[in-house]
Amino acid sequence: MNLNYPNGKKYKPKEPVTDIKVKNKKNGSYSNRGMTLEEDLNETNEFYRERKIAVIHKKPTPVQIVQVDYPNRSAAVIKEAYFKLASTTDYNGVYKGKYIDFEAKETQNPTSFPLKNFHQHQVQHMEEVMDQGGICFVILRFTRFEHVYLLEAKHLLVYWERMMNGGRKSITKEEIELKGHHIPLGFQPRIDYIKIIDTL
Amino acid sequence: MNLNYPNGKKYKPKEPVTDIKVKNKKNGSYSNRGMTLEEDLNETNEFYRERKIAVIHKKPTPVQIVQVDYPNRSAAVIKEAYFKLASTTDYNGVYKGKYIDFEAKETQNPTSFPLKNFHQHQVQHMEEVMDQGGICFVILRFTRFEHVYLLEAKHLLVYWERMMNGGRKSITKEEIELKGHHIPLGFQPRIDYIKIIDTL
Repeated sequence: MNLNYPNGKKYKPKEPVTDIKVKNKKNGSYSNRGMTLEEDLNETNEFYRERKIAVIHKKPTPVQIVQVDYPNRSAAVIKEAYFKLASTTDYNGVYKGKYIDFEAKETQNPTSFPLKNFHQHQVQHMEEVMDQGGICFVILRFTRFEHVYLLEAKHLLVYWERMMNGGRKSITKEEIELKGHHIPLGFQPRIDYIKIIDTL
Repeated sequence: MNLNYPNGKKYKPKEPVTDIKVKNKKNGSYSNRGMTLEEDLNETNEFYRERKIAVIHKKPTPVQIVQVDYPNRSAAVIKEAYFKLASTTDYNGVYKGKYIDFEAKETQNPTSFPLKNFHQHQVQHMEEVMDQGGICFVILRFTRFEHVYLLEAKHLLVYWERMMNGGRKSITKEEIELKGHHIPLGFQPRIDYIKIIDTL
């Protein structure tokens, strides 16, 4: 059963709030304060695509659809659905033929990044991607200071193992500054992570 | 707003019917007759992942979430949502470090493959992926005969352009047999498209 195109009809949904924000921002009528990491990355990826620098997309939020109504002469309406735990990371795509894969998370914690932001499925996926020679990392934002870092998955795995072996359940900001790469915030693109990848 | 993990609670949904089918099939208690192309590909991708041959996933169905209820002591329930048109292809991942990207469609039509199975956004995405040096193709199944073909995106684009220029709105089976690669159905994996990619 293909739920993608009910009645073969192309439903045009209202734009998500985030998109609207981004648009306003482009008009200059929207201060960037309060933009989420996801919004910044969506805008960054749009910038990369428009300029043919890279093709990276955020995956849709996985939902388990249970009930769908098909009202006459109108689009299908999902009446009951549940959020599913993602089995992969949120972002992937291609840069110069190479496979790019990453997860992005932010924390209010000023001194360390809690590992509960990730789950076992995602960490396993990162290992699988690395085994295939893909470029895999996480983008971490400390919202308090708007500090953003790129941390390669190989390093994240070390801290994950430390937790699994009874160690601390977070990565200290010092560790991230040491092993990761700081990404200075820009205007366009907001979070220029491709520039970091070129240096890896 | 991150809708992924409502209340930070990890909701464990019932397994989709397709997954259950696949499981039964593995127990040998399920005839393959009637398996959809999606089910065959999910099983094929699972086979590739388990054997570390490639890491390819189907993207979740994109939905526009409008209303979510948070009943006490239970998981969030999506009460109103709509299907969105996918802006990319359904499948992507990594094989030997290279980016793999494809769309899979099937038709009941015995003699030609209707191009209405694809839409402009997807075709544009395929062009962008090719520009980045990614490996991009479509997997086409003629359900009547269970004939499956891999057609590189560069060829699909030619037929798409032909339609855009007023030509026929489908690809004839002869054209697909000529430009595409037949994928014989197997047991494990069901649709061994990686073997074709090695020959490209």
